[in-house]
Amino acid sequence: MKGFSLFDHDAPHPEASQLTAFAGNELNRLAEARTEESLAEALKRDGLHILAFSGNRLVLKHEEQVLDPLFAPYELADLAPDPDNAVLLGYKANGEPRIALPVLAEESRFAQGYKLITARELYRDTDLEAELIGEAAQGFSLLHWNSENRFCGSCGQPMQPRIGGYKRECPACGRISFPRTDPVAIMLCVDEKEDRVLLGRGVHFPEGMYSCLAGFIEPAETIENAVRREVLEESGTRIGRVRYHASQPWPVPHQLMIGVLAEALSFEITRDEAELADCRWFSRDEVKAMIDLRSEAAKAPAKGTIAHRLMSDWLDWTA
Amino acid sequence: MKGFSLFDHDAPHPEASQLTAFAGNELNRLAEARTEESLAEALKRDGLHILAFSGNRLVLKHEEQVLDPLFAPYELADLAPDPDNAVLLGYKANGEPRIALPVLAEESRFAQGYKLITARELYRDTDLEAELIGEAAQGFSLLHWNSENRFCGSCGQPMQPRIGGYKRECPACGRISFPRTDPVAIMLCVDEKEDRVLLGRGVHFPEGMYSCLAGFIEPAETIENAVRREVLEESGTRIGRVRYHASQPWPVPHQLMIGVLAEALSFEITRDEAELADCRWFSRDEVKAMIDLRSEAAKAPAKGTIAHRLMSDWLDWTA
Repeated sequence: MKGFSLFDHDAPHPEASQLTAFAGNELNRLAEARTEESLAEALKRDGLHILAFSGNRLVLKHEEQVLDPLFAPYELADLAPDPDNAVLLGYKANGEPRIALPVLAEESRFAQGYKLITARELYRDTDLEAELIGEAAQGFSLLHWNSENRFCGSCGQPMQPRIGGYKRECPACGRISFPRTDPVAIMLCVDEKEDRVLLGRGVHFPEGMYSCLAGFIEPAETIENAVRREVLEESGTRIGRVRYHASQPWPVPHQLMIGVLAEALSFEITRDEAELADCRWFSRDEVKAMIDLRSEAAKAPAKGTIAHRLMSDWLDWTA
Repeated sequence: MKGFSLFDHDAPHPEASQLTAFAGNELNRLAEARTEESLAEALKRDGLHILAFSGNRLVLKHEEQVLDPLFAPYELADLAPDPDNAVLLGYKANGEPRIALPVLAEESRFAQGYKLITARELYRDTDLEAELIGEAAQGFSLLHWNSENRFCGSCGQPMQPRIGGYKRECPACGRISFPRTDPVAIMLCVDEKEDRVLLGRGVHFPEGMYSCLAGFIEPAETIENAVRREVLEESGTRIGRVRYHASQPWPVPHQLMIGVLAEALSFEITRDEAELADCRWFSRDEVKAMIDLRSEAAKAPAKGTIAHRLMSDWLDWTA
């Protein structure tokens, strides 16, 4: 086709995915090179730094105003580290390994000099650099997956970790299991003619917050069919075309958010009352006020979320 | 932006995903409405038809030249049906339910009057309609997931199926688990200047076949970062921009293939010898010969695969 450009070199920014929270991980994972020795080798390397997790929270050193998630091995000695369940995340460009490690010390041990934070608090309430937040996301997801696969789903016997925490194997029946990543479709539904978008309030949302509709992609669905099904089930709105926009890792515990713009073909709303407390169309001005934090009536999801990205990019790209 | 079109109404075809194998499932899944009674209610409905599975193969009635995967309940009576592990797939537009059901009869029972086929054979070697192939894909994936989650990964005790096979619950520890869908990135790497693409031969590929590179998206990765990592690890080639093209359900056992075009920034190949038997650049003429089945030296993946779609759409869209 004449004038057809395969890669959109004129896009307002190069890649929307890079602008979402948790996307800053630049570790070299060496995924194809993982062996039974990878973790032990990494533990011996100079410059090793460890991300420590207490249950489903990341441990930060907390001194004066400074929060620091990177531990040298000796700094963990009295927090009851659990090296049998460590996971090798990857390597920094300078060769330093990064490892995620559960620590088993009692909660009271962290009362002074430490702070424990969830993945959500990590991106929302700290100003840690994007790379560290991305590395911690990988730790949250992998440790959670390992902890939920201690026993074999096929025969019920204990499984053992393999190749640095990226595989689990059942010595009893031979079953092998790999880390889980759950794709979720999240969609900004656009009424092009009226220049408005569909937003909803989940029944458990914070007061006043409205966001894009979303739902797990099911086995044996295309992304596009999942988008049409979710929107129809949640709002009664029919969707035509679907345009991929961005993806985001969401480590609560291991989702892959797939963000799209969806062409609305019908405009009457029949809300799924079990899922949504409200669902309605928002004008460009209303969305702009939400993104600019000027709106009293409705709040956008936090900056860094893919929902915020979809809403603000729709404003910018179609202005 | 002036002239900016959010939805590509001039695309050569409306949605590449719809043109891949296993994408034709049009069942109404009623995903948000599933309850503990859904399966029992569906079993009582008129017009119920069942897809039967023996291990990891679909059972087809085979009479003369006709293959038929739809069983009325009475037709399964002497194949040892296992209704405790049935899964409700959804409803046809006319209200008929579709259920996937394991049957436990010995393999020899299927020697006459039946045919057992894998998911791969289903799309490649039969001419069943796309809707049925898509429904069977859902059955393959859900039955496999249920069979691999008989025991609880957290405590090792038996789990029980819930809401028609879309949830499993552990009565011992309360753990709840949902069906698994594994996102895989599959990419056609394009050298725009030389008008050629990168294809590889997996070490277990059929003789002469070359395809797009591919790999599982890992926890805490964006789609785009997974594409760059996979291509770098498998071929040593650096990738810049990534353009989403299509997705495909792949029920072996429950993948979501996410197909993209990837902008090559480097052109020397350092092949991962453990993964790939060969990896090289193919000119437009070579790819065209593969797609047109005129090539002796190299074969394309079967029609219906997302790799075939990426290759043929690259030919058509950039001609």
